Amino acid sequence: MTAQGKVALGLDFGTESVRALLVTLSGEEVSSAVARYKHGQMTRTLPTTGEKLPPDFAFQHPQDWIDASGRATRQALRRAGPGCDEVISIGVDFTSCTMLPTLADGTPLCRLDEFAREMFAWPKLWKHHGAKQQTERINQLARKRKERWLSRYGGIIGLEWFFPKILETFDEAPGVYEAAEVWLEAGDWYVWQLVGGEAANLPRSTCQAGYKAMWNAHDGYPSRHFFAALDRQVADVVQRKMPGRMLAPGQQAGHLIPAMAKKLGLRPGIAVSAATIDAHAGVPGAGVAEAGTLVMVMGTSSCHMLNARQERLIPGIAGVVDGGILPGYYGYETGQAAVGDAFDWFRRLTGEKGFQRLNAAAAKVAPGAEGVISIDWFNGCRTPLMDGSLRGAFQGLSLNHDAAHLYRALIEATAFGLRWIVDLLCEGGVPVRKFVATGGLPHHNPLLVQIYADVLGKPITVPPSAQGPALGAAILGVLAAGKKATGFGSASAAVRRMAAATENDPLRPAKIVRPERSNRTVYDAAYRRYRETAAAMAGSPSG
Amino acid sequence: MTAQGKVALGLDFGTESVRALLVTLSGEEVSSAVARYKHGQMTRTLPTTGEKLPPDFAFQHPQDWIDASGRATRQALRRAGPGCDEVISIGVDFTSCTMLPTLADGTPLCRLDEFAREMFAWPKLWKHHGAKQQTERINQLARKRKERWLSRYGGIIGLEWFFPKILETFDEAPGVYEAAEVWLEAGDWYVWQLVGGEAANLPRSTCQAGYKAMWNAHDGYPSRHFFAALDRQVADVVQRKMPGRMLAPGQQAGHLIPAMAKKLGLRPGIAVSAATIDAHAGVPGAGVAEAGTLVMVMGTSSCHMLNARQERLIPGIAGVVDGGILPGYYGYETGQAAVGDAFDWFRRLTGEKGFQRLNAAAAKVAPGAEGVISIDWFNGCRTPLMDGSLRGAFQGLSLNHDAAHLYRALIEATAFGLRWIVDLLCEGGVPVRKFVATGGLPHHNPLLVQIYADVLGKPITVPPSAQGPALGAAILGVLAAGKKATGFGSASAAVRRMAAATENDPLRPAKIVRPERSNRTVYDAAYRRYRETAAAMAGSPSG
Repeated sequence: MTAQGKVALGLDFGTESVRALLVTLSGEEVSSAVARYKHGQMTRTLPTTGEKLPPDFAFQHPQDWIDASGRATRQALRRAGPGCDEVISIGVDFTSCTMLPTLADGTPLCRLDEFAREMFAWPKLWKHHGAKQQTERINQLARKRKERWLSRYGGIIGLEWFFPKILETFDEAPGVYEAAEVWLEAGDWYVWQLVGGEAANLPRSTCQAGYKAMWNAHDGYPSRHFFAALDRQVADVVQRKMPGRMLAPGQQAGHLIPAMAKKLGLRPGIAVSAATIDAHAGVPGAGVAEAGTLVMVMGTSSCHMLNARQERLIPGIAGVVDGGILPGYYGYETGQAAVGDAFDWFRRLTGEKGFQRLNAAAAKVAPGAEGVISIDWFNGCRTPLMDGSLRGAFQGLSLNHDAAHLYRALIEATAFGLRWIVDLLCEGGVPVRKFVATGGLPHHNPLLVQIYADVLGKPITVPPSAQGPALGAAILGVLAAGKKATGFGSASAAVRRMAAATENDPLRPAKIVRPERSNRTVYDAAYRRYRETAAAMAGSPSG
Repeated sequence: MTAQGKVALGLDFGTESVRALLVTLSGEEVSSAVARYKHGQMTRTLPTTGEKLPPDFAFQHPQDWIDASGRATRQALRRAGPGCDEVISIGVDFTSCTMLPTLADGTPLCRLDEFAREMFAWPKLWKHHGAKQQTERINQLARKRKERWLSRYGGIIGLEWFFPKILETFDEAPGVYEAAEVWLEAGDWYVWQLVGGEAANLPRSTCQAGYKAMWNAHDGYPSRHFFAALDRQVADVVQRKMPGRMLAPGQQAGHLIPAMAKKLGLRPGIAVSAATIDAHAGVPGAGVAEAGTLVMVMGTSSCHMLNARQERLIPGIAGVVDGGILPGYYGYETGQAAVGDAFDWFRRLTGEKGFQRLNAAAAKVAPGAEGVISIDWFNGCRTPLMDGSLRGAFQGLSLNHDAAHLYRALIEATAFGLRWIVDLLCEGGVPVRKFVATGGLPHHNPLLVQIYADVLGKPITVPPSAQGPALGAAILGVLAAGKKATGFGSASAAVRRMAAATENDPLRPAKIVRPERSNRTVYDAAYRRYRETAAAMAGSPSG
């Protein structure tokens, strides 16, 4: 078997489904498959009891991750044909912060009879927004104590993060908090299921910990004193309930155990990488290994990743982690909490089965949506306001507008939200020179990419793979397999070989979407209105 | 033939259709029929050329009024059976200010070959909003000149009114302005078609003139000096282009001419009343002949009519006309520019065929719409801001909201808009003691009336007829027929006999919708948010 014949598996766990991608070490896609989670997002009722969930709550079912990844991988292997026994590694990316409480043997608490009917025993999806009050307490205390880690997150931590979600369970369901022997990210849990072993040894990703749990390599997690000041009973949460060893994405977490190999249809013993966040996997997945290129991973939400040589603490820009995306750079993570989710919300509102008619109609509406302005905070504002309680809006509505105007305004709103982030980065001394769009949306929606290019006034590169995060995850798995197995001496060598794409590359032709200069003036004016409206709403009780 | 056997015809010209109602002199409905206008509202294209109309433009086709009234009347007569030859009178109410330019013989300019392709030759529907600039010029000049009439309209005139619409045509299509020998309200034009005669003698309604053309019995229209100051070329617009005699609704305009009798299927020679505005016809139509009862005529837009003993000039409360609704009272006219129209806009947005599912789902949403707040300015704000350029909004939107939340918020927004009007009247010294809801909406939408009662904290009476304005028009026709023919010695005697309704009346049982006290606190808070949001939007560039 040559290195060219070897195949890497990337597993990309999204909000509704998991994608399995098989790719050669030269970056050729062999096959892929998607499997939906049986329970999807659990936002309405608890499956065990039918209990109605409060608004803003969102859970997932851990068995869905196991079952769907098994189905997707086996289908991808079938589609690949006889080469399936050459798979040498698994890389995993996951939504974050999606997290859960388990026993010391990894059993999710929600799978125990005594906790199955208790909503707080279930995995909380990244978008679960039940921890508003706890987030505020953490932020207030951190400001008061002048915690050093706070400045790494733009002076404020988010309500979707790890410790607010733990603290919410401690407040609302102390029995669940107490029974939990391990609290961990879903991505880490899944990798633990792949490689097995004791809780004390479970592989935790530095990426998730750095971006969602206030961890860094120098200081670790927030101190015991900090947690004690929150509540004496959670003082030892890190020491008692967060066992494991810290591993960077691309480091080897272990080898596939037979039980999971059988579920996935793979050979036992192949290398498994530590998990990474889905958005962060999109950076290597888009073939980007240099500073100054913003990788926009656009799915249900958008995550914008940037490698930079500078460490700048910019208010509103959360999550600057040394080596958080790729070694040797400061990784900046910014994001918009509802993008594809907001479009899909609007599609459902209009009773449309798909986006085809909406996209065609919106393309005929002039830039600026004939005065309709939307604010895209349908799931709160992540960057820069970091406030999950903010809400979306449509303004400027008249009887002459229809669904096409509102939908176009919504797309434009997400583009304006991005421009705001880019303006803040550049003004804060972190240059953004190039733009790469990946994730599911850019491939399905050319109108969206054109509007983004027009609003930014910059060309946007769309790499050929619609599977950026999955490809990135596969690359991380290749790194975990080691130089001896793959021949790659560095992360950037693997990224370049497996994912780099340019406009004239015959093998991996990227699409370059160039801005329509004639739209610039209209969009500049509309962007100013968006910023004014956003400022007014952020300060109002109905924001 | 006894007086009881006599039948009156009321014709109620709405935005999309005309309703014909046959009713006995004791108020029993004999039959009714509705006929839609073939061209409906012309808001997208001109029928003669296919030319795309600017946003906010809205025209109608004059032949539609003739044809649809003929169809509706003949169908009502067929439904009535053999009593059809006993019809003794016609009363007419019409949307206002819907207006048009004609030749001296009454031919609409748009029906001439030379003008059929010119959009400004067509009748402008009440909701045509093309005269923004002209409205501003009239308001500025009136303020500068301290015109006495301005205070009767709350210090500001509206962009839907008569003279802004004329001035727009003068500015945009001077040839049309010049060729027009008569400018008049559509209601007056229709009555003129019914009774015939010279332009110099055409019957003009004091109601339309008083509420939409700055006329009153003492001062007439604005002065020649005022118009000359607007533009020397329109100085004589009243003298040269507005011939006719002023008649109050209920006064006899003339007798039905044979040509129109044939179209309607009626005997020639029966009495015809001067026209009235559709909303104003709703007051006698609801059986209201006393001061302090607000009659809410709720259709595509809402008009709220109030008879009062006091003449108070309240900023934002436009249109106080002595005897404008019924003799002996000051008639207050306030309004909301989009109610049923806004609901229908939302229905179309959601792809629903009817309102049944939306109403059922909205009824299950708690008061306050789980934080969604709407501003109902989809066609501008009539009372109290009198600004047609303001725009509607939804705020507080999250991914967990659906169409039911937005629709409920929209209904609540119209209720809050009404409460704002009532608050202004009461604070201004004009008491509002009782509420009567009429027009099409209250009968079709019990949820709507309940929300209004809850938001106002007062019971609302819904008279049994779904045809308030048509019944009111029929009563005005009866007055025009005279005491000898009908036996009624006064307007209030006719109103009481033909339309008064109470809860325990076996013949005409009114429905009383009582407020749910437990909702009061939630609605008080939501109303404050509405007022704050409205204030912020009225002062913002994206309002």
